[in-house]
Amino acid sequence: MMPKITRDQVKVPVDVLVDAREAYIDNYMAATRGTGRLMLFACDQKVEHMNGDFYGEGIDIADLDPEHLFKIADQGVCGVMAGQRGLIARYAADYPDVNYLVKMNSKTNLVKTSQDDPYSGQLHDLEAVLAMREAGVNIVGLGYTLYLGSEYESTMLSEAGQLIAEAHAQGLIVVLWIYPRGKAVGDREKAPETIAGAAGVALCLGADFVKVNPPVASDGKTSAENLAVASAAAGRTGLVCAGGSTVDAPVFLSQLHDQIHIGNAVGNATGRNIHQRSLDEAVRLTKAISAITLADASVEEAVKVFDGEADFSL
Amino acid sequence: MMPKITRDQVKVPVDVLVDAREAYIDNYMAATRGTGRLMLFACDQKVEHMNGDFYGEGIDIADLDPEHLFKIADQGVCGVMAGQRGLIARYAADYPDVNYLVKMNSKTNLVKTSQDDPYSGQLHDLEAVLAMREAGVNIVGLGYTLYLGSEYESTMLSEAGQLIAEAHAQGLIVVLWIYPRGKAVGDREKAPETIAGAAGVALCLGADFVKVNPPVASDGKTSAENLAVASAAAGRTGLVCAGGSTVDAPVFLSQLHDQIHIGNAVGNATGRNIHQRSLDEAVRLTKAISAITLADASVEEAVKVFDGEADFSL
Amino acid sequence: MMPKITRDQVKVPVDVLVDAREAYIDNYMAATRGTGRLMLFACDQKVEHMNGDFYGEGIDIADLDPEHLFKIADQGVCGVMAGQRGLIARYAADYPDVNYLVKMNSKTNLVKTSQDDPYSGQLHDLEAVLAMREAGVNIVGLGYTLYLGSEYESTMLSEAGQLIAEAHAQGLIVVLWIYPRGKAVGDREKAPETIAGAAGVALCLGADFVKVNPPVASDGKTSAENLAVASAAAGRTGLVCAGGSTVDAPVFLSQLHDQIHIGNAVGNATGRNIHQRSLDEAVRLTKAISAITLADASVEEAVKVFDGEADFSL
Amino acid sequence: MMPKITRDQVKVPVDVLVDAREAYIDNYMAATRGTGRLMLFACDQKVEHMNGDFYGEGIDIADLDPEHLFKIADQGVCGVMAGQRGLIARYAADYPDVNYLVKMNSKTNLVKTSQDDPYSGQLHDLEAVLAMREAGVNIVGLGYTLYLGSEYESTMLSEAGQLIAEAHAQGLIVVLWIYPRGKAVGDREKAPETIAGAAGVALCLGADFVKVNPPVASDGKTSAENLAVASAAAGRTGLVCAGGSTVDAPVFLSQLHDQIHIGNAVGNATGRNIHQRSLDEAVRLTKAISAITLADASVEEAVKVFDGEADFSL
Amino acid sequence: MMPKITRDQVKVPVDVLVDAREAYIDNYMAATRGTGRLMLFACDQKVEHMNGDFYGEGIDIADLDPEHLFKIADQGVCGVMAGQRGLIARYAADYPDVNYLVKMNSKTNLVKTSQDDPYSGQLHDLEAVLAMREAGVNIVGLGYTLYLGSEYESTMLSEAGQLIAEAHAQGLIVVLWIYPRGKAVGDREKAPETIAGAAGVALCLGADFVKVNPPVASDGKTSAENLAVASAAAGRTGLVCAGGSTVDAPVFLSQLHDQIHIGNAVGNATGRNIHQRSLDEAVRLTKAISAITLADASVEEAVKVFDGEADFSL
Repeated sequence: MMPKITRDQVKVPVDVLVDAREAYIDNYMAATRGTGRLMLFACDQKVEHMNGDFYGEGIDIADLDPEHLFKIADQGVCGVMAGQRGLIARYAADYPDVNYLVKMNSKTNLVKTSQDDPYSGQLHDLEAVLAMREAGVNIVGLGYTLYLGSEYESTMLSEAGQLIAEAHAQGLIVVLWIYPRGKAVGDREKAPETIAGAAGVALCLGADFVKVNPPVASDGKTSAENLAVASAAAGRTGLVCAGGSTVDAPVFLSQLHDQIHIGNAVGNATGRNIHQRSLDEAVRLTKAISAITLADASVEEAVKVFDGEADFSL
Repeated sequence: MMPKITRDQVKVPVDVLVDAREAYIDNYMAATRGTGRLMLFACDQKVEHMNGDFYGEGIDIADLDPEHLFKIADQGVCGVMAGQRGLIARYAADYPDVNYLVKMNSKTNLVKTSQDDPYSGQLHDLEAVLAMREAGVNIVGLGYTLYLGSEYESTMLSEAGQLIAEAHAQGLIVVLWIYPRGKAVGDREKAPETIAGAAGVALCLGADFVKVNPPVASDGKTSAENLAVASAAAGRTGLVCAGGSTVDAPVFLSQLHDQIHIGNAVGNATGRNIHQRSLDEAVRLTKAISAITLADASVEEAVKVFDGEADFSL
Repeated sequence: MMPKITRDQVKVPVDVLVDAREAYIDNYMAATRGTGRLMLFACDQKVEHMNGDFYGEGIDIADLDPEHLFKIADQGVCGVMAGQRGLIARYAADYPDVNYLVKMNSKTNLVKTSQDDPYSGQLHDLEAVLAMREAGVNIVGLGYTLYLGSEYESTMLSEAGQLIAEAHAQGLIVVLWIYPRGKAVGDREKAPETIAGAAGVALCLGADFVKVNPPVASDGKTSAENLAVASAAAGRTGLVCAGGSTVDAPVFLSQLHDQIHIGNAVGNATGRNIHQRSLDEAVRLTKAISAITLADASVEEAVKVFDGEADFSL
Repeated sequence: MMPKITRDQVKVPVDVLVDAREAYIDNYMAATRGTGRLMLFACDQKVEHMNGDFYGEGIDIADLDPEHLFKIADQGVCGVMAGQRGLIARYAADYPDVNYLVKMNSKTNLVKTSQDDPYSGQLHDLEAVLAMREAGVNIVGLGYTLYLGSEYESTMLSEAGQLIAEAHAQGLIVVLWIYPRGKAVGDREKAPETIAGAAGVALCLGADFVKVNPPVASDGKTSAENLAVASAAAGRTGLVCAGGSTVDAPVFLSQLHDQIHIGNAVGNATGRNIHQRSLDEAVRLTKAISAITLADASVEEAVKVFDGEADFSL
Repeated sequence: MMPKITRDQVKVPVDVLVDAREAYIDNYMAATRGTGRLMLFACDQKVEHMNGDFYGEGIDIADLDPEHLFKIADQGVCGVMAGQRGLIARYAADYPDVNYLVKMNSKTNLVKTSQDDPYSGQLHDLEAVLAMREAGVNIVGLGYTLYLGSEYESTMLSEAGQLIAEAHAQGLIVVLWIYPRGKAVGDREKAPETIAGAAGVALCLGADFVKVNPPVASDGKTSAENLAVASAAAGRTGLVCAGGSTVDAPVFLSQLHDQIHIGNAVGNATGRNIHQRSLDEAVRLTKAISAITLADASVEEAVKVFDGEADFSL
């Protein structure tokens, strides 16, 4: 069982203003369930991938109803549920205990990279988020996606840079999704040096966590070993890996264990792998993941949780 | 006869601030005539299609006078009349009882998609609408058109995202018109998965209603059956279908009945089909449509209303 | 002799806020000389056409001095003199009785449509105009030029839409110049359906008046007959025609008479035809035009005024 | 000897607000040394032409030190010294008696017109200038460069238009540099009709002075005769000519005399011709120029001043 | 031993407002360690060059941990450590004595100049920096990178111009990184006239220091001799040279000595050459550099410091 961290072990960045310091620690402790590790349940794909991630072959029919996401977050175990402001606004009243992370920008997948370099624009200002927080919604932080290497990189860097400064000043934590992509990046999207570079950029912007794709294996190094370089490059910004498309749960849990224990990731960011399953199975998978991320369970223990042979709760 | 909903059955999103909660419920009940269903009379085509929708072969000469639209809204039965701010400003004093929905953006049809991907820009800020509401104009909400898949998608997503947050904070309801369009979309504008994706995007932005084109029939499924998937993807955002070009009234009413009872649409958004007729005929059509949308009438009952053999009023 | 309208006959749009209602009626009555008809003296060509409209063959040498414009407006009869803010600022102190309409945007004619679609950008904010009005300058309204069908249409629609809302809130009237133009429009700039479409757009933006080019004759209909369709499409927005290049005065006056009495135009917008003449002749032409526009004179009566055989004053 | 003008002879434009009226007259009188004529010492080329105007063959080595410019302005005779805000900020404390005109925009000459149409962007807001004035720096006005006919013309027109309104409201004078340039202009940059058009645009924007290139001679007219047309087109905006590259002093003085006495220019704007010389020679040239501009000296008298055979001071 | 300058020898530019004057002098004295010379430790490459400057062949493994940079700045001797706001925010609480210079803009090296001209966008507003300063972080100034000759030059000039005005008004010093680059510059990036031009631009923007690349040797002149021209062109803006890629320490120190004593540079800006070494070696190199920059040591003395045979501290 992983020891909990204490409030004074939280390394509060200096752009968290004095008045917001306690709020930041509250949010950091809530998001990491008091462990310093992040189990992020990614629910922003209804824009990013449109309905293709929620309906079709191999996807449980329950996933067609957007409320499925909230049920999983509510009944399962996760640190934060990440989604667009509007999505959260429509359901949060019925799921008040979930920790919400507002994804500030999004794009659809209709325009492909072959047509134009990717740009994901900010959907609204921070005021719109703060107003919801003040109205009592349990918002602990923000998310923003950055496509480094896109011809629109500068706009995204600026939007992210400004948001992080303002969010920290208000005590909110910030998670960056960084995906190098565009004509300039080509097939090097998951090259180890690209991923490590992305991690360093997140640090320079001041993010609390950065979500990257797992680097490819290369030069005799496994993906997790290459990930360790990226984790080091991220410095005091915690690095977590995107989950990718749905795979067999034990395989997924094993990869996650390696990412954390070899790659020095400080958690996970998982979406499709969870919500494309039935509610019961999805709930069990969040618990299995959290057993690893939040309680240093072994792969075997986690698989038992997934299989319903053991339970995990906070 | 469809039972009315009560005020406390309205699912108020959490971005409606406390002070605006009663106003939002008022607006929602007014727009849906207390049913939760939306009968939207679309009157924004004088920009979108210029004069071609209002004058020419097959169009009643009455439609050339813009006041025709207001007479229909006033004498007929509808939930809201949607039009640009300026149009409303010129006539609303004489038609104070109509529920107005301000269409916030518009473009003409002069530049075709083959020349450039579509962008419809916001015509003015929200202040301009709130000032009119404060001056006593009966404005219940806003509309905004989004062309997903356009190279300008990000700008429209941002304008819509910000408007929804601000409108809800002020107690206004928001209807999105979402039409996937552009080089990236090609001939898939009405493909079922495209329409369902659009519906999910509307939810993530937090819209109250989304107006989409009816999906094509495909894979042995009718348009209405495909629509049911989109309605599910929209979650708590109500989905309604655009009416398209003028067709025979019984055919139109039958399609609408299917959209609602098979496709789970929560109403209709109809323009040309109504206003291209004489005032008397147009008024009867609004009543026939509303009989279906607002009172669960059968197609046969609705046709009788259209034919003047029965009346319908609220 | 055309009867004057009374103040309570002015149809004040609802975006004119309560505090600005009397100012709007004042401005409307001043601009239309109490008739509801507009005689607009267009003096914005020093940017639009640079010096080519003011110096050269067939142009009276008096026109080279910009003060010529103010002398005409002062000694002649017109409703408003339209010009850029800076031009007005330089001379208005010496011509305090002229009604000024500030043209808010302008472009030169150096970049041709074959090189790039036209965009005419806003030259300054509304504050700059209001400050001058507060300082006592007799400003009754604003003007803005829109090139529908240009690839920059959306920017101009947004600038115009916002300006109209703000100007009305301050009691100022607004005249739109709408010229469909650009690659998408090609040679249909003056097609009847294009002009009628432009008229409808002006209404949807909430303009008080719209200045369009006279449509071409077509399908057995004269230009004036085609204009009647556009006037109808404009609804409560008054339509006036641009004067175009200098022609013989009787021909010009006859065309104007037809525009008003067949085409239902509510006035005229004339520039070069007036100012390219000597002061005396220009003054007489403003009076001849105003005799038709503001007093329903016959062409014959107006020609007498132009010939100095009769006088016209308000 | 040219008679001085009195304060009440200054034609104050109506956009100079009442509170700023005395400041405007002060600045106008200071800039024109009480004559209504402008001797502008142009020192903005360190950005416009980079170091090429200040170092190299034919340029006195003294010109390499930027302080050279301030020494000339201080010891010589000129109306205003024009330079970028930052340049002025670095030296003004040591040269407090110079009248400064802040050049608000600038571009380098690295990107040629053959690569892209020119755009010179505003370097900072007006507040940055007003703060310096309030701190006691002797700032009398602003300058802005406009490339008419560039594809970026609209942005520069808007920046200039807004700045003039705000500067006048604060009592500052404004000088526009207008150079028609770009693909659309081609080799007509100095055509008489182009220059005259530029002059009219300056008036419509409300500038106090406009700096243009001398038009070419054409159609049997000299450059100065063609300039007279431009001066007339400028109306109440005073027109001055750019000096161009360094030429023999007597030739330069003769051209200036013609510009003023034949071309009706109201002064000069000279840079390289002055500062590329040694301090002593540069100082003498400013005096020779000022003798013509500010005191209606003959060319012969001015040459004597340049040759050190006569002195000129205010 | 170089004599210290006194507070009243600091040439405070006039855009430093009265209230900020003492803060500016404090910051200038701190950044230059009371010498008027700048030893800038450049730590912004984690964005500019991504992880390639921090991990790989020839780079000490210590450099992979971002905290390495702070340890060097803390234990070594430098004037300021330059890095992005977010990077500083994450570590400054543990390294409170370092003088921080916030690098306001950054871009990655993914998009090459062959694909698009470079633009480095501002990452956040100045408020975000001032808030951190108010919270007690030891921030003495700002940095901004300008790519002159890029097609995006105008945006960078405007961002830099505005930032300098605002930073000075708040008592912060500003260092510009100016690298002429883009299609228009081609292989003339380090041509002497290009570098000298860049220096002059920095002055016109009002920068306190400008960092340029050392010019190439040409026309029988060494790089340092050519640098002297640029230093002169910079006037009262201090010029320092970028360090470039890692070279042998004695060679580096010798080049620096020439830059200062032949090229009239007022310091150095060094990054990779320092941080790619082990902590001990890096610390010794900062001391060796500072011996030259801040104490006029000879190359031999500095090499001894680097070799650990002598120490240097302030």
